[in-house]
Amino acid sequence: MDPRFLQALAAPAGTKIALVIMDGLGGLPLEPGGKTELETARTPNLDALAAQSALGLTVPVGPGITPGSGPGHLAIFGYDPIEYEIGRGALEALGVDFELGPEDVAARGNFCSVDAAGVVTDRRAGRIPTVVGRELAELLRAIRLEGVELFVETVKEHRFAFVMRGPGLDAALTDTDPHTTGLAVRPVRALEPGSEKTAGLANEFVEWARKLLADKHPANMILLRGFARFPRLPSFQELYGLRAAAIAVNGMYRGVARSAGMTVLDVPGTAPADEFAVLEQAWGEFDFFYLHIKETDTAGEDGDFCRKVRAIEEVDGLMPRLMALRPDVVIVSGDHSSPALLRSHSWHPVPTMLYSGLVRADGIGAFGERACAQGSLGVLPAKRVLPIALANAQRLAKYGA
Amino acid sequence: MDPRFLQALAAPAGTKIALVIMDGLGGLPLEPGGKTELETARTPNLDALAAQSALGLTVPVGPGITPGSGPGHLAIFGYDPIEYEIGRGALEALGVDFELGPEDVAARGNFCSVDAAGVVTDRRAGRIPTVVGRELAELLRAIRLEGVELFVETVKEHRFAFVMRGPGLDAALTDTDPHTTGLAVRPVRALEPGSEKTAGLANEFVEWARKLLADKHPANMILLRGFARFPRLPSFQELYGLRAAAIAVNGMYRGVARSAGMTVLDVPGTAPADEFAVLEQAWGEFDFFYLHIKETDTAGEDGDFCRKVRAIEEVDGLMPRLMALRPDVVIVSGDHSSPALLRSHSWHPVPTMLYSGLVRADGIGAFGERACAQGSLGVLPAKRVLPIALANAQRLAKYGA
Repeated sequence: MDPRFLQALAAPAGTKIALVIMDGLGGLPLEPGGKTELETARTPNLDALAAQSALGLTVPVGPGITPGSGPGHLAIFGYDPIEYEIGRGALEALGVDFELGPEDVAARGNFCSVDAAGVVTDRRAGRIPTVVGRELAELLRAIRLEGVELFVETVKEHRFAFVMRGPGLDAALTDTDPHTTGLAVRPVRALEPGSEKTAGLANEFVEWARKLLADKHPANMILLRGFARFPRLPSFQELYGLRAAAIAVNGMYRGVARSAGMTVLDVPGTAPADEFAVLEQAWGEFDFFYLHIKETDTAGEDGDFCRKVRAIEEVDGLMPRLMALRPDVVIVSGDHSSPALLRSHSWHPVPTMLYSGLVRADGIGAFGERACAQGSLGVLPAKRVLPIALANAQRLAKYGA
Repeated sequence: MDPRFLQALAAPAGTKIALVIMDGLGGLPLEPGGKTELETARTPNLDALAAQSALGLTVPVGPGITPGSGPGHLAIFGYDPIEYEIGRGALEALGVDFELGPEDVAARGNFCSVDAAGVVTDRRAGRIPTVVGRELAELLRAIRLEGVELFVETVKEHRFAFVMRGPGLDAALTDTDPHTTGLAVRPVRALEPGSEKTAGLANEFVEWARKLLADKHPANMILLRGFARFPRLPSFQELYGLRAAAIAVNGMYRGVARSAGMTVLDVPGTAPADEFAVLEQAWGEFDFFYLHIKETDTAGEDGDFCRKVRAIEEVDGLMPRLMALRPDVVIVSGDHSSPALLRSHSWHPVPTMLYSGLVRADGIGAFGERACAQGSLGVLPAKRVLPIALANAQRLAKYGA
């Protein structure tokens, strides 16, 4: 269902929904006939919850499509991930809690290394420490351009977010990043007549940066890519009347949640237990909680099957803290699969469980890919899960008389 | 996913995909509670492959819709069978390896019998032998009309393909075939103002044919139906960068494959073993192989349950020859169901297996309708299978950041 269709049915209730997303949860066995990461993990709490839940496999974008984190998250938040797109630049700025305005144009920035001829020799400037990145960002903040306000926000290591704010800006711009070493930094080009002014400003900024960083090798130049505006998503509050909170450590996920109008909570620490502690503290103040676990994806992308197993087991150990809060609806799923075997995101459907007192429980006492393939949710688009959760939270009125 | 969406994600790889289509594969038990043709067949090779595959049931056009061979094939080739349509006339011409041009207008032709009043007494002229059809076609080739080039290509028995080539032609025309005996041959009528000229030319051709065939009873007249142009399908090469080959004996399937830009290989012989021999010979030259088996459908349409079972068993016996080539992805499916019980195509979903080293195998060691209903692919539109195959062949890049 389109979010706007659901909006018309949204009804108030005192219920609470928790959406626990283990990033890249879905996996593959290391050898044919073996078990996936999730099937290997010892998960007594998730298994017990599965027995009281409806299980299924979610398809984030479409069959065979490997989703990036942006589309993967849009889908689990109930938005069509093809209709709504979040540009990389906007994600980067949102991720560092930058309050992107509706007219701002943001890009993802890298400090990089160039040789005397301006050819890129390292797109990440040897992954300079974050502290160095901060100093260099400070230099860039000295740049002034007429008619726009500029922001340079350090992200991590060589990465920063670049934002232009002012009237008449447009994000239809090409990257300066040649996306490979051995090529020169490219000028920003306007993709539409309306973005020519913005292209000119971006190029002026890049030339200033080149001069300011000239003696700062290895970080003697910058690359900009993924120019984008703030995505205009209808918010959870507006659509469903939900006071929604996001509990996530990493910038991108905090950013997508913010674009859906969620209140992004501060997490003092980076461990899953720290996130569950925030959940407990904030439980009284919100109706909907999105809790994001990054380590499952990181381990998958590192090809570390066992570390991904342990990350899942760690979340399993924390589940009783969530259940002690007596949530009305709990979804446990992922934004996509990241099998250690592939060391990357993948297209495989994502194991998903939906617990509530009103669900038709499948009685399958295991949470894994094959168990979910037997579940009554079937194989369904990820964006279809949120409406089912809202229904189980008795937050959707009847359609039609 | 729309093929154009996939096109933007297409990535090169050295992998090979084999699509084995047993025409009309899906079946029904002869009596309630019994086994279908596929469930009855002894298929040790397919069963073993199923254990390493993901299984599902595909819906060619839509729930409850019985597909013709054209739409059924468009769907398994990844095209929306409602958005893309292939007219019968175009299929007939493509099927005899006629190189239809983009502006040509083609129709399916029958030699038929008419009485003195011009009323159709046999729509197939007693199924005259192909050799007679050839002689009569030669007569029709003498017809000349101003401004167009005409082609008459013998198909089989009473059937021929009729093609008009020239500027300003249009295929929005009615059939001359009354589709029943006891009625007169109808004049071609234009369905749009732009097709009036073409209607006039077609009617001139028919009147010439009437004169030339007057003393050739039982084949003393012709019927034309299914006027159509060459379908404009974006090709597998253009969409996915795939060098695609088609291995099929029957004209129509060769024609649909050609319309998708596949290279249609010659098969010396008509047996499935002949087709597998071609597969082996051409293996090095292509990335994608569509191999079509006709007998399953023919037996189903004849109502011959046992012959369909044997046809399936014959393909099972040949599967080791395909697997010895070490394909990266194998799909075994059908373009629709043709239960012997119904003696016709039917709407029933089609058993489908997708094998690859990267698939999450369901571990179900049987290939049949009920086994596939348990599979993790679920019940899915047939057009969704190709993207999953491309993903498993690692030929699709990530969508979004």
